[in-house]
Amino acid sequence: MRWLKFTAAGKTSWGIIEGEHVIAVEGDPFGEWRRGTQSHALKDVKIELPLIPRTFYCVGLNYLKHLKEAADRAGTVPNVPDRPEIGYRAQNALIAHDEDVVIPASATEKIHYEGELVVVIGKKAKHLTEANAMDCVFGYTIGNDVSERTWQKADRSLWRSKNADTFKPMGPWIETSVDLERMETVIRVNGQETGRFRTNDMIFGIVPFLVELSKYFALSPGDVIWMGTDGASPDLKSGDVVEIDITGIGTLRNRFVKEEV
Amino acid sequence: MRWLKFTAAGKTSWGIIEGEHVIAVEGDPFGEWRRGTQSHALKDVKIELPLIPRTFYCVGLNYLKHLKEAADRAGTVPNVPDRPEIGYRAQNALIAHDEDVVIPASATEKIHYEGELVVVIGKKAKHLTEANAMDCVFGYTIGNDVSERTWQKADRSLWRSKNADTFKPMGPWIETSVDLERMETVIRVNGQETGRFRTNDMIFGIVPFLVELSKYFALSPGDVIWMGTDGASPDLKSGDVVEIDITGIGTLRNRFVKEEV
Repeated sequence: MRWLKFTAAGKTSWGIIEGEHVIAVEGDPFGEWRRGTQSHALKDVKIELPLIPRTFYCVGLNYLKHLKEAADRAGTVPNVPDRPEIGYRAQNALIAHDEDVVIPASATEKIHYEGELVVVIGKKAKHLTEANAMDCVFGYTIGNDVSERTWQKADRSLWRSKNADTFKPMGPWIETSVDLERMETVIRVNGQETGRFRTNDMIFGIVPFLVELSKYFALSPGDVIWMGTDGASPDLKSGDVVEIDITGIGTLRNRFVKEEV
Repeated sequence: MRWLKFTAAGKTSWGIIEGEHVIAVEGDPFGEWRRGTQSHALKDVKIELPLIPRTFYCVGLNYLKHLKEAADRAGTVPNVPDRPEIGYRAQNALIAHDEDVVIPASATEKIHYEGELVVVIGKKAKHLTEANAMDCVFGYTIGNDVSERTWQKADRSLWRSKNADTFKPMGPWIETSVDLERMETVIRVNGQETGRFRTNDMIFGIVPFLVELSKYFALSPGDVIWMGTDGASPDLKSGDVVEIDITGIGTLRNRFVKEEV
């Protein structure tokens, strides 16, 4: 099932995508909901951010090639994590599919994409086990963990580098049923492929993360966990359009524009 | 004005504190509200977490003594920030006044408090100036940035050390009118004073932070900025009660208990 948050005729609601149409729903997928009677052509609606998570979890280094490329940039050797550890991103930075990533006027040219699988939590969960961890997963969407690499090196935390407004596109919708082993993440800049990796080639997969996080955190409906990226991005410039495609979910597309001052 | 989120007779709402009473309010202080007719004795209501921020900002190192003590622990020299930089905390960790901080079973004995002034944002704001920065502040509350120091050293981010469930007590209420220059933060463990500092003795104050953050982030109603702490904490043990008192706001009190497994 494919859940879309959308606006049509001035009204924002959840909906279910069926083919080229979206069927409006009353309520929301994390609580009570009822299929409505209104149907809209998907191409005619404004796609909204699926949700603002209560807690916004993000895995830093979870694919080997990305780790090596990060180490090369820093002039160090790759430091492969020996256990699943998590970081955070900021809700202020979230934008929807087809909204613009605005590169701050003071940013350098080192603007990179990071295409990521996003796990959406569906229920309250603590102290999960390997056997029941996946029960708390509602579905999957796509994230672009946009990063300014000069700030990433200069700052004490990732505050500007990864959390400036518009730096966290997420969407376009939530797919509840995927086949993790068959998924590929493909990234295109202006229609040309610039990255491709097996989505599930993670150093630590979804289950180990859910088990480890839930030792310390009660996960909540609507929380998201961004699972990290592989490979590296070219430097992006104003006008570039980045598409992140994950098998079985869809395509998250955003244009990058430089802030005018 | 003093805003309290509270529960009485099974109903949770905002209220205004007047003396020893709280007057229920319909709506919320960030939008439309109307003074109700119901009044409760403050001592009879359950004090709730004032809010769950959309984005949860927290200043890491913002007082000189704390910086020096952190450097001493790490065996390094204090690295005084030369500009205001921000970090984040996780919404899952928030609890209210008088709720228990649960020390995870796997934590070490290095459990510390950090008493902090919390700035509560009242309106959308970006690109603030020194002249208008304070206009976006709704009020002030108190935070305890509970930290597990062994994890803080061992982990790549502050995920467990500062964001484990219950590690972020905040409250008891929001005071809209304070005199920053006359405020003192006093911390007591089991009634005995263990720390005291001038609340506004920050390396970078509220205005420079608001100006700098809002260059990159649109602040939103209900966002909070925890302003850092001074001094150091003794190791806390199960049963300890920590009170953080800030002049003109009130006292945030929480008991620490070890998780039973």
